[in-house]
Amino acid sequence: MKVVTFGEIMLRLSPASLERLVQAKALEVVYGGGEANVAVSLANYGHEAYFVTKLPKHEIGESALNELRRYGVNTSYIARGGERLGIYYLETGASLRPSKVIYDRSHSAISEAKPQDFDFKKIFKGASWFHWSGITPALSPQVAKILEAACIEAKAQGLKISVDLNYRKKLWSPEEAQKVMIPLMKYVDVCIGNEEDAEKVLGFKSGSNIEHGELNVEGYKNSFLAMRKQFGFKVIATTLRQSHSATHNTWSALILADDFYQSRKYEINPIVDRVGGGDSFSGGLIHGLLTTDYKNALEFAVAASALKHTISGDFNHASEEEVLALCGGDTSGRVQR
Amino acid sequence: MKVVTFGEIMLRLSPASLERLVQAKALEVVYGGGEANVAVSLANYGHEAYFVTKLPKHEIGESALNELRRYGVNTSYIARGGERLGIYYLETGASLRPSKVIYDRSHSAISEAKPQDFDFKKIFKGASWFHWSGITPALSPQVAKILEAACIEAKAQGLKISVDLNYRKKLWSPEEAQKVMIPLMKYVDVCIGNEEDAEKVLGFKSGSNIEHGELNVEGYKNSFLAMRKQFGFKVIATTLRQSHSATHNTWSALILADDFYQSRKYEINPIVDRVGGGDSFSGGLIHGLLTTDYKNALEFAVAASALKHTISGDFNHASEEEVLALCGGDTSGRVQR
Amino acid sequence: MKVVTFGEIMLRLSPASLERLVQAKALEVVYGGGEANVAVSLANYGHEAYFVTKLPKHEIGESALNELRRYGVNTSYIARGGERLGIYYLETGASLRPSKVIYDRSHSAISEAKPQDFDFKKIFKGASWFHWSGITPALSPQVAKILEAACIEAKAQGLKISVDLNYRKKLWSPEEAQKVMIPLMKYVDVCIGNEEDAEKVLGFKSGSNIEHGELNVEGYKNSFLAMRKQFGFKVIATTLRQSHSATHNTWSALILADDFYQSRKYEINPIVDRVGGGDSFSGGLIHGLLTTDYKNALEFAVAASALKHTISGDFNHASEEEVLALCGGDTSGRVQR
Amino acid sequence: MKVVTFGEIMLRLSPASLERLVQAKALEVVYGGGEANVAVSLANYGHEAYFVTKLPKHEIGESALNELRRYGVNTSYIARGGERLGIYYLETGASLRPSKVIYDRSHSAISEAKPQDFDFKKIFKGASWFHWSGITPALSPQVAKILEAACIEAKAQGLKISVDLNYRKKLWSPEEAQKVMIPLMKYVDVCIGNEEDAEKVLGFKSGSNIEHGELNVEGYKNSFLAMRKQFGFKVIATTLRQSHSATHNTWSALILADDFYQSRKYEINPIVDRVGGGDSFSGGLIHGLLTTDYKNALEFAVAASALKHTISGDFNHASEEEVLALCGGDTSGRVQR
Amino acid sequence: MKVVTFGEIMLRLSPASLERLVQAKALEVVYGGGEANVAVSLANYGHEAYFVTKLPKHEIGESALNELRRYGVNTSYIARGGERLGIYYLETGASLRPSKVIYDRSHSAISEAKPQDFDFKKIFKGASWFHWSGITPALSPQVAKILEAACIEAKAQGLKISVDLNYRKKLWSPEEAQKVMIPLMKYVDVCIGNEEDAEKVLGFKSGSNIEHGELNVEGYKNSFLAMRKQFGFKVIATTLRQSHSATHNTWSALILADDFYQSRKYEINPIVDRVGGGDSFSGGLIHGLLTTDYKNALEFAVAASALKHTISGDFNHASEEEVLALCGGDTSGRVQR
Amino acid sequence: MKVVTFGEIMLRLSPASLERLVQAKALEVVYGGGEANVAVSLANYGHEAYFVTKLPKHEIGESALNELRRYGVNTSYIARGGERLGIYYLETGASLRPSKVIYDRSHSAISEAKPQDFDFKKIFKGASWFHWSGITPALSPQVAKILEAACIEAKAQGLKISVDLNYRKKLWSPEEAQKVMIPLMKYVDVCIGNEEDAEKVLGFKSGSNIEHGELNVEGYKNSFLAMRKQFGFKVIATTLRQSHSATHNTWSALILADDFYQSRKYEINPIVDRVGGGDSFSGGLIHGLLTTDYKNALEFAVAASALKHTISGDFNHASEEEVLALCGGDTSGRVQR
Repeated sequence: MKVVTFGEIMLRLSPASLERLVQAKALEVVYGGGEANVAVSLANYGHEAYFVTKLPKHEIGESALNELRRYGVNTSYIARGGERLGIYYLETGASLRPSKVIYDRSHSAISEAKPQDFDFKKIFKGASWFHWSGITPALSPQVAKILEAACIEAKAQGLKISVDLNYRKKLWSPEEAQKVMIPLMKYVDVCIGNEEDAEKVLGFKSGSNIEHGELNVEGYKNSFLAMRKQFGFKVIATTLRQSHSATHNTWSALILADDFYQSRKYEINPIVDRVGGGDSFSGGLIHGLLTTDYKNALEFAVAASALKHTISGDFNHASEEEVLALCGGDTSGRVQR
Repeated sequence: MKVVTFGEIMLRLSPASLERLVQAKALEVVYGGGEANVAVSLANYGHEAYFVTKLPKHEIGESALNELRRYGVNTSYIARGGERLGIYYLETGASLRPSKVIYDRSHSAISEAKPQDFDFKKIFKGASWFHWSGITPALSPQVAKILEAACIEAKAQGLKISVDLNYRKKLWSPEEAQKVMIPLMKYVDVCIGNEEDAEKVLGFKSGSNIEHGELNVEGYKNSFLAMRKQFGFKVIATTLRQSHSATHNTWSALILADDFYQSRKYEINPIVDRVGGGDSFSGGLIHGLLTTDYKNALEFAVAASALKHTISGDFNHASEEEVLALCGGDTSGRVQR
Repeated sequence: MKVVTFGEIMLRLSPASLERLVQAKALEVVYGGGEANVAVSLANYGHEAYFVTKLPKHEIGESALNELRRYGVNTSYIARGGERLGIYYLETGASLRPSKVIYDRSHSAISEAKPQDFDFKKIFKGASWFHWSGITPALSPQVAKILEAACIEAKAQGLKISVDLNYRKKLWSPEEAQKVMIPLMKYVDVCIGNEEDAEKVLGFKSGSNIEHGELNVEGYKNSFLAMRKQFGFKVIATTLRQSHSATHNTWSALILADDFYQSRKYEINPIVDRVGGGDSFSGGLIHGLLTTDYKNALEFAVAASALKHTISGDFNHASEEEVLALCGGDTSGRVQR
Repeated sequence: MKVVTFGEIMLRLSPASLERLVQAKALEVVYGGGEANVAVSLANYGHEAYFVTKLPKHEIGESALNELRRYGVNTSYIARGGERLGIYYLETGASLRPSKVIYDRSHSAISEAKPQDFDFKKIFKGASWFHWSGITPALSPQVAKILEAACIEAKAQGLKISVDLNYRKKLWSPEEAQKVMIPLMKYVDVCIGNEEDAEKVLGFKSGSNIEHGELNVEGYKNSFLAMRKQFGFKVIATTLRQSHSATHNTWSALILADDFYQSRKYEINPIVDRVGGGDSFSGGLIHGLLTTDYKNALEFAVAASALKHTISGDFNHASEEEVLALCGGDTSGRVQR
Repeated sequence: MKVVTFGEIMLRLSPASLERLVQAKALEVVYGGGEANVAVSLANYGHEAYFVTKLPKHEIGESALNELRRYGVNTSYIARGGERLGIYYLETGASLRPSKVIYDRSHSAISEAKPQDFDFKKIFKGASWFHWSGITPALSPQVAKILEAACIEAKAQGLKISVDLNYRKKLWSPEEAQKVMIPLMKYVDVCIGNEEDAEKVLGFKSGSNIEHGELNVEGYKNSFLAMRKQFGFKVIATTLRQSHSATHNTWSALILADDFYQSRKYEINPIVDRVGGGDSFSGGLIHGLLTTDYKNALEFAVAASALKHTISGDFNHASEEEVLALCGGDTSGRVQR
Repeated sequence: MKVVTFGEIMLRLSPASLERLVQAKALEVVYGGGEANVAVSLANYGHEAYFVTKLPKHEIGESALNELRRYGVNTSYIARGGERLGIYYLETGASLRPSKVIYDRSHSAISEAKPQDFDFKKIFKGASWFHWSGITPALSPQVAKILEAACIEAKAQGLKISVDLNYRKKLWSPEEAQKVMIPLMKYVDVCIGNEEDAEKVLGFKSGSNIEHGELNVEGYKNSFLAMRKQFGFKVIATTLRQSHSATHNTWSALILADDFYQSRKYEINPIVDRVGGGDSFSGGLIHGLLTTDYKNALEFAVAASALKHTISGDFNHASEEEVLALCGGDTSGRVQR
């Protein structure tokens, strides 16, 4: 299936192993960003995945593009030009020490992109699905407008649209977010995000009273039902992370589609790299919804994203076969010869 | 004591730290193989350990030989010539993601070795023990024949013979294995392997009904007694691995000699490198059987192999003193100054 | 506040990641030593921290000095000259395999320093605190004399003095230690160390009968009261380490000041680098005693040193803000964006 | 323009910097092979470059494919399957010490490919050029047959065909080479190779008596004229390497097309990596012949390949703009800001 | 002597060894910038060197500051705050392939600094010299104003002022440069730069007609005399680089002070890192002018900067003693034991 | 042939590539020392080479021993015990910047060895040659005595003895050297060293007036004749190094045996690592004198040591075949496939 994602890819710079930034003499290069990560997941599962963005013409922009190409993402519709590639510095935590992200993403090529950089009529031809996250419209009012036009075109061509709400407080305030995001929700079929995200990004309040970090499944169900009522989403899903330490998390997910369903839980210990965990869930969920029923889709998505936590970098280098093996219940980690 | 092992050593190529193979820009070089690993263990415990194989004449063959020499293995009887050194690619897993091995070992120098490459009469002179694994005869019918001749010579010179059954499905089918292996068992004094191995490699069925991964000690005992009856082994031993994840295993072992005995259990978390874990058990067991009683031998072997899981590479770089400290019960990991 | 520490800094050489020393082809360079580590902690918390020692004039001595400067320690009173920089080789353990330290510190510049190398009258001008450990007087009788003179000068200028008892069996015997250390205790306001240390270094016996590794809080309290009585310390504190493995420790601390107080406990798993853990406790405690009450001081110190276990190298690269966040109870390790 | 190349890509393993193979603890991973290298050059110059081969289905095969994709080569027609990826070990020389290559390429997937693995009718649709080297038919008689069928199809569809004669003595003898290669020459428009190659691969003898390494331009001209007469090539070109040491070469080239022409000379000192130098010449020449006259084509090709010697790996990571700047005469190496 | 420099320090990111940016998987971290580099040189020669700039409060800003501190630069007057640290990507060339710099420095903290960030009255107290380059006022009109105020204060306190003209076409046009720079020249005692720089930055035309890259010493002398006449500089100096390739340069310098003088020439082959070469000349010249006569100052400066070309990173890690040894004529490179 | 060498092996620590020591964050580990290096060369040429020394019992001592074993040196007679392994820090120079060595070798195990550590009667059994250098007796008076006893035993068993005069000013003064060395010369058959060495170590003055660095061959001949007359050496040889820069040397050698002979000259550019260059000459010369005539021996030795300059580390990893290829005149550095 042809799937299109639209957003920002950044240069990620992180010290080797578990060094702190103030100790680093070299920084490892990874390229990543919400929608790019989703595109890589989908390419790994055999889809024709397109990532759309704008990248500067120099070698750093070229390298970001090359990395996408390398893992099978179609980059034909990436515009070239603009000032710079956004950067984020990542310091990976361990045990009691949290990971830390420093953003240096202002003035990136994509944040200053113009409508004429993208021909969505052409881009969406033959496509089945369009995915974006709450980060994309937060990049700049300009990009928010481009995104809205893309949603309209996608709907016109009959694509399914999914959004990962993903609130980023460094990019905008809840008020700014809501002003932009609420009008976009009418194009969305599949919403990924929980009550907390929905509160900040959509101004949503369910009254179901879920404490942060608590696994009140009934509360989530009520909250999802209310979100569906208010915004008309066909599917709502979210991951549930219990964070015991920077190294050890419990991971599961919930979905509301035909009915409400809770996935199995995974103990992830140690975590190798949790950045991109949410995106790998979105990638897995889209693949699942395109190919199977909503329960299996959720199980695929949560297994895919559990695996992601054991893989370094933003991208989820896991095949459909590997995800299915984990879904199938083999968590023993025995050597595959 | 002089101990001789015979088999294949391969070039192992693995990405740094926990990268996946598709992410790697460099591969770490390790040399290893069942019988070579056993020889290194024995050299570490102070024995005169010989490893016998055939290696190509070029620098890659030389490097494998050098690595053995470096860690005190006598390489005087390694034949030189042939096409290539076998390779295996290893991707180390973590948590829910299993380690993965890709073999590229066909057409190796040892698999195409000829009888005249080895003078076992000379090789075994003054030796006490001969060890090999089920991988050696699986390399090629030629090597199986060389091995049988070696066993006959070893018996003639009065050596003890141990085998690690080690079934490798990429090398042969159970039928092929049994045809070659069963006739070789009459030379074997010490058999390392459990009912599962015995079933595939020796066609053995105890009827004791042990579920995979379960610690049914009584069942194992019955199974060992039946194996002893059928094949005449003087000693039968096996490790028991409970695999909670790629990072966390519980490790213990069983032996049938004068009587049946179960070792203490070790929690290994995190595992640094579990490849060679079984070989380090064999190395520890041979050392133990050469120097102490069967119960202490088993405790030494299981502690040695528990330690191996915390050491990178195929070889067990642990001294007798370090193994004994662990046997003695200090699992606290306190800094040794 | 101006704080002065006096002692030895060494070149630490350790294999990358979890390799054993016999496998290493390169060694990572870290500089560290008890009192230097304390000075770095204090510089991180915003104090004017001076480290006093003697370093050889060549590039290796220069590099040790540079590393201190880099992290904000004032190095103006470091004497230059002498033969060599002391070295310690560190092999980091994992799970059942303990870390291992090999010292090569004899004949270092500081151990052969002379009284005229340091002008403590000038060094202590305007300072509030002087810290040293039991390692400093163990370096040589000469250094013990220099230290005593420094203590006298510090008291004359009204500084608080703290000591970390820190017994090192490779440097001196209990008898030698007691002969030097007991007379120095009269200058000490704050003593860091437990009954065990006190027994070896001070010949102290409380009769409170604490088993090694046991958390007999009442016993500790009695022991601390007895130490206070015998030596006149105003404050006594110690850390409590429960070592489950080289990778997993439980960490807490005790203090006797106005009253007796036990800190909260931290599970540290995995440990990244536990060398310098005790020094980061001392650094945190001095900061705490300089800025808050004894209970908060202890909580700050134990949180600081828990964090240190997750940071590579001897130095504790953690800010006051990060330590306070952990004190405040957030142990979830969630990504800080 | 669409250009197709067909051949083998191998995993290249080489020690870091200038280490010898017997010193290596890690090997750097590069993927390369004559025709793959040409395809990358052409992709860099903006062509639609296809590389056709067969790669095993596992991660190592995937990684070779990914590396091609990463640099813009179209991999849609690469067949998947077979046993292994060919390997070559490269030790880079310096000064008086030559570089050394150890091949481990037998039994590769491409050498055991079958006609049905490739649909050249489809592959050549819309293409302008087909390039291969003398290595391809040397891989196996099977591959030689596939190649002949491809040549016939290419001619039928009106493509230009170029060959780089490239004799490899480890793959076949001159007799074997000539038996296969001579009948293929009738399909060839552009022949890259000198009298020496032509003698071994085509059994050609001009009688013009050129001493090895000598720059007898008149002799080359006569030799080229004779080759044209005998084989009907429209264009003949060759590079001229004067090898002063492993680090310092003089590099130029000759062409016979409308007329005979000698390029300018480049001093290359130091050489960073000369593997792939000839392939980058072929890539540059094809680009030149597709876009400009034969003299400019030769100057582009020789400048491109001079640049390649300063770039690590098999691939020539140089843009058309960079090659043109060097062609234009700027050899000063001044920093480009 | 106390010397103050004022300008920008950037994070420099470059691939290991001689890789191209599109090949890099990790980037080496160096911090550097014209005036910071000069400050490090002066600290190495024993001066009290201050570097003044503004750095963001996060860990990347902290790391830049730490690197200056590490090498002995006083950082007390560095303001903290602002958005980001400027970045430049550096690809090191070899032989025919030039080095390449990609700037990503817009919106840096220093470029958006405000007058109140710096108290130059306090900063210059007790100082002898103030150095800046043409890059500083090019950062923003704001910074140009701060610089002018600093020059006025420096003159008021009797400091010598030196400028390195250093035209950067990515930062401003000649017209913009001249508008800002010409009025600043009245404060300058020592001007570093040649006719070319003077033309772009100062609109200067001598009519002496020097061809680029040519060593027309008489022409330079006339040009310097004219510059002195027009701008009133007490000393004018420039380096002369003959660039044979990215790896091999000839390096010398000229000065006009009491009289005109040409330094000895150095062959630099290979160049390890030529970035910062000009800054190390400025640092050497300031040191020379502060401590000796103008001829020896020039010889010191040119030897210092020749050495810099053999040292990686922006900073010149060479001691006064090492520079003097080279000045003294020992270019043999014999091992110093 | 069995050859024995006796002396010190040290841990060499050097920054990666061309960094300076003050920049290093990791140090590469190499083991080397004059006589150890000679032993490795001889093992590479197929001799049974023994290196005799004393090494501490810990892992660092073990690693030095392992490295010798790895490259085929017999380590059976290495004594174990003592305090520490000597260290030298090496900073590799480039172009105008010389390499720099910092020694930290005092108090090493070998320097404090005792006569009973070595049983030279047994060690020399069946040996043909004994080699040592002027460094060995400089280690301590104790070692000088052990060496003298070894020389007496070697002569008694009929071995040839060679010495490399090798004056080290950090270890002793000329006066001390002469007092120890002159009496040892009566045991020496082959003396390696030039007039300069001979002057410092042996107090020799030929009056032939050779300027340092000059290639006055007639002068060398006269000087050698005088040395032969005074000390009775059968063979005298020396290398001649013309040091154009740290990167570029011209290398040749002279010998006086049956007659006087000068070798061919080699241009070495770039030098990869010149440490051990002299030792590789000694190793080549001993091999040559054991297997061929003195002229061919000299050519072999000078070619071997020219090659060494292109190989990193102290050891000369070059085979007899490779040395002979260079002797045979192939200096073109063409790739060996």
